[in-house]
Amino acid sequence: MSENIAVLGLGLMGTALAETLLAAGHRVTVWNRSSAKADALVAKGATRAATAAEAVAAAPLTIVCVLDYEAARAVLDGADLAGRTVLNLTNGRPAEARATGEWVNGRGGDYLDGGIMAVPYMIGRPGALILYSGPRDVFDRHEATLKPLAEPRHLGEDPGLAPLYDLALLTGMYGQIAGFLEAAALIAAEGRPVREFTETLLVPWLHAMASAQPRWAEDMERGDYATEVSNLEVNRVGLGNLVIAFEEQGVKPDLLLPMKEIVERRVARGHGAEGLPGLIEELR
Amino acid sequence: MSENIAVLGLGLMGTALAETLLAAGHRVTVWNRSSAKADALVAKGATRAATAAEAVAAAPLTIVCVLDYEAARAVLDGADLAGRTVLNLTNGRPAEARATGEWVNGRGGDYLDGGIMAVPYMIGRPGALILYSGPRDVFDRHEATLKPLAEPRHLGEDPGLAPLYDLALLTGMYGQIAGFLEAAALIAAEGRPVREFTETLLVPWLHAMASAQPRWAEDMERGDYATEVSNLEVNRVGLGNLVIAFEEQGVKPDLLLPMKEIVERRVARGHGAEGLPGLIEELR
Repeated sequence: MSENIAVLGLGLMGTALAETLLAAGHRVTVWNRSSAKADALVAKGATRAATAAEAVAAAPLTIVCVLDYEAARAVLDGADLAGRTVLNLTNGRPAEARATGEWVNGRGGDYLDGGIMAVPYMIGRPGALILYSGPRDVFDRHEATLKPLAEPRHLGEDPGLAPLYDLALLTGMYGQIAGFLEAAALIAAEGRPVREFTETLLVPWLHAMASAQPRWAEDMERGDYATEVSNLEVNRVGLGNLVIAFEEQGVKPDLLLPMKEIVERRVARGHGAEGLPGLIEELR
Repeated sequence: MSENIAVLGLGLMGTALAETLLAAGHRVTVWNRSSAKADALVAKGATRAATAAEAVAAAPLTIVCVLDYEAARAVLDGADLAGRTVLNLTNGRPAEARATGEWVNGRGGDYLDGGIMAVPYMIGRPGALILYSGPRDVFDRHEATLKPLAEPRHLGEDPGLAPLYDLALLTGMYGQIAGFLEAAALIAAEGRPVREFTETLLVPWLHAMASAQPRWAEDMERGDYATEVSNLEVNRVGLGNLVIAFEEQGVKPDLLLPMKEIVERRVARGHGAEGLPGLIEELR
């Protein structure tokens, strides 16, 4: 069924969203602060709105994808939100999503928040995921419309959940990247081929190691950190050795040091016989 | 073909190695500082040596798996190594492996170093990997004997390579674990189910993200850090936002902070338009 959808903000991501909705057969009304960014979309069949308020008025669902939440509110400020749904796909934090949800609700609109787990060129392709949060009935009303963009996953009613999970996934990614950078630096410093190491050893190894994480998550939920495999004392010795090796190889271990420190702290507190999942207690 | 192999050091790992060699039909001579640890292996057909020197004398190939390289040398000190091969599977650093190789060579023995990419219960099972380094002909001579332990991968003649790659893989793993811990803490602090998040979102996401690493490794080899997707300035803003979110959610971002700092440093040096792989330059 063809829906009318407004898209506010036509950066790389907003443009990819609008294009994918057009390709899926929807009517799309677009607006961007600098209007020229709409030209290519208009050529593909989108309707150009003169103001954000006009775009919002044209459609039951408005997607906002701008720089930050402050910009999102500024863009929506003059629009009549009564009876409309705002889906905010702007990057932000849980607290901002909750405040923006209340702000939209206060103006008579429904609010959904979303976290896009994809880069722009992945939108509309397999593997792209969008996390949604906000009232279930509002999500249900728009799910079919949104499905062409990416696999939709509704996390719960609290609008803060989509940015929470989004940030948690980015956090996991940054950790993995930090480890990759340090590992690559160690290999490169010996003049060994980094790509071959990464492709044939590191990536399969990281895949295998990640498969332990759901069991560790279970330990965290139970608060039971007993282990028979690799306790914190063993990891403390291993990380100490690792940092000495970095020094001997002339590579800075900067990205690894807080992991060494947190393990040392946990062991010093008497938890040396426990497993790595117990380190979560040091982050609270 | 049945070979005679000596195994010095019968901790969890040494025991798993000796058991697997026995199960593969080899004759195995075992020694441990506290002799009782050999009892179960002797019951399975191993021969107990009274001293490490006696074990070395009984077999052309001696596997050493003890606490550290200092212990490895102490164990081998009284043995006649002439014409023998020592395979050191003790955890250590490249510099230690090189020094120990020279020490063994100086006593007329051949030296291989090895890094076991598995926990003890994985030995002899699919997925276990042992990295080897040292003279190719020495490795070739023993490869068939060692194959039942784990998939063997010879990295090169320099005995330091096995510990180098071993430590690089551990480094990658610790980064991934650090990211997992922080992500889990963020989810747990909101009282959301950590296991469900980890299993259905984080692990698939990490798998997808790791698949970018070989391309990044190529950028590192070429020293070309141009990007069209996610430059360092975008990551700087994202990481700043992430750290504020951690504070708002009451979770310590300790393990993530050096990643934020290194990105800020690189941007401050004028590389904001480049991609994440360029961060390796800050680790040299």
